Amino acid sequence: MKIVIQIIKAFFVCLMSLISFIYPYKLSSKIKECKNYLYSFWIKRFLGCVGHGSRVSYPCILQGGGNKNIRIGHNTSIQGHVVLGCWTQYGDNQFFNPSIIIGSHCNIGEYNQITACNGITIGDGLLTGRFVYIGDNSHGGLTREEAPIPPVKRKLFSKGEIRIGNNVWIGDKVTILAGVTIGDNVIIGANSVVTHDLPNNCVAAGVPARVLKKL
Amino acid sequence: MKIVIQIIKAFFVCLMSLISFIYPYKLSSKIKECKNYLYSFWIKRFLGCVGHGSRVSYPCILQGGGNKNIRIGHNTSIQGHVVLGCWTQYGDNQFFNPSIIIGSHCNIGEYNQITACNGITIGDGLLTGRFVYIGDNSHGGLTREEAPIPPVKRKLFSKGEIRIGNNVWIGDKVTILAGVTIGDNVIIGANSVVTHDLPNNCVAAGVPARVLKKL
Amino acid sequence: MKIVIQIIKAFFVCLMSLISFIYPYKLSSKIKECKNYLYSFWIKRFLGCVGHGSRVSYPCILQGGGNKNIRIGHNTSIQGHVVLGCWTQYGDNQFFNPSIIIGSHCNIGEYNQITACNGITIGDGLLTGRFVYIGDNSHGGLTREEAPIPPVKRKLFSKGEIRIGNNVWIGDKVTILAGVTIGDNVIIGANSVVTHDLPNNCVAAGVPARVLKKL
Repeated sequence: MKIVIQIIKAFFVCLMSLISFIYPYKLSSKIKECKNYLYSFWIKRFLGCVGHGSRVSYPCILQGGGNKNIRIGHNTSIQGHVVLGCWTQYGDNQFFNPSIIIGSHCNIGEYNQITACNGITIGDGLLTGRFVYIGDNSHGGLTREEAPIPPVKRKLFSKGEIRIGNNVWIGDKVTILAGVTIGDNVIIGANSVVTHDLPNNCVAAGVPARVLKKL
Repeated sequence: MKIVIQIIKAFFVCLMSLISFIYPYKLSSKIKECKNYLYSFWIKRFLGCVGHGSRVSYPCILQGGGNKNIRIGHNTSIQGHVVLGCWTQYGDNQFFNPSIIIGSHCNIGEYNQITACNGITIGDGLLTGRFVYIGDNSHGGLTREEAPIPPVKRKLFSKGEIRIGNNVWIGDKVTILAGVTIGDNVIIGANSVVTHDLPNNCVAAGVPARVLKKL
Repeated sequence: MKIVIQIIKAFFVCLMSLISFIYPYKLSSKIKECKNYLYSFWIKRFLGCVGHGSRVSYPCILQGGGNKNIRIGHNTSIQGHVVLGCWTQYGDNQFFNPSIIIGSHCNIGEYNQITACNGITIGDGLLTGRFVYIGDNSHGGLTREEAPIPPVKRKLFSKGEIRIGNNVWIGDKVTILAGVTIGDNVIIGANSVVTHDLPNNCVAAGVPARVLKKL
């Protein structure tokens, strides 16, 4: 019995080795790239405006119904598994006119989520890590009256728009909350939570994020 | 040569535009929804008890063998890529009788992980962001004796059950550790680590999480 | 009309119940395991050296071109969706000779990212949670001169190698930055950011991580 299993194992090792010659990793990468290239042309049709040379990788999840209010500049790359939510309607009786504007030469990392019911404006040259959340809305306004309501049923509330300047670098797993303005050339350390404005030319980090260094 | 590439490109742009009419984003969403609807009926059969109107999206990863100890209330939605781990056995000689009880009208976000070897009880109306971890167990008890053992081989240890009240809102990337009781109507800020109890009607955040505001 | 929908619903409930007998969750797990087993043999062929008994789950994303500089010990398990980046070239004019060495009996969690342009050395028995980032490089050196350059176009810079000892346990969503040495038997709490060295036999946590307890 043991010998039979050994033989089956050896067979599969040989088989997969053979396949690795016919179908090397580089080829699988190329195929993935082509798939994303084609996917880009498809998904772009549902967004407001996407500049030339911009790529949206598979899968991009669009939420909230306001896809046409999402505008992306030139040569920007949106990695896979990104959620873009532009909420024109929430529940039955809340209506918004939000916009998500992403500049040129940006690189939005995998598993990011950008969600707006007010407005998010991102400059040129943004680089984000993975698992970043940028959202201008919250479920309710943190009041005593809303506390006993299930969060999903609280009214969507935005403290203010989010504005991100040019050449900003946002680390992995950063969270950026409503009403925040981030200046140009800012670097935000991994795992930070940005709750207040950050000036130009600084390095910030922490929960909540504080300026650590002026450049 | 360049002209040929240009023509091929143009052809694919036209092709994908055509496909975008035949197969619009809304249709792809609807199909995904139907798939999740069917998947729900399949995966529910392996859980202990799931109330009416509750949805479990694809894929839901079940770990630890104690699926039948997982109970979910009515109209609760478990998003995609959620890991539910109920560990009845760990290694060869550790046996547990854990339970995961999730109330009604909850919304468990994508990529969450809920893992128990003791007990996790969640009330009604919970809303969680993405990448949340709720786990009542750790690999070993942080003692000198266990330190030189590889963490995977340390005994699974639970400091205590986790209890989460009603109408709690947990932000993105929050981690909730063993032995913690969270009251009703609590809001936990993004990227927080909850290591101690939180009272009713409060906003908490930080690493470790502290009460920032009483509602 | 309503009755028709009810009948269709009932039909699908019956159908999925039937499927759950023919194709139970355990079978779906086994098939996934087999797929990962075969995938391991394929992907290993593109890495430098992988010890016996080590498993690399689907999908493993290889970046940076230096796959052959990645070495993995025996009985190590790399979970799904892990990114391994060994950057031999960045942009047009930056060349590196990095290495990623992972010891034996390690368990690298889902959605982890290990990225090197210098060197990352991991001992035996490492256990990591999900969404962990271990990276020895940054986009630029945080200087005033580089600030106005888009982060992606800044030169890749490494403050130093990362060294991780034996029997280290890294919690969910931890970020480990360049130039850090972590001792043996260290436990790093969830959501921490490790920016400085950690000695042997300690528990550390926080943003940035500080030693909380000596074992």
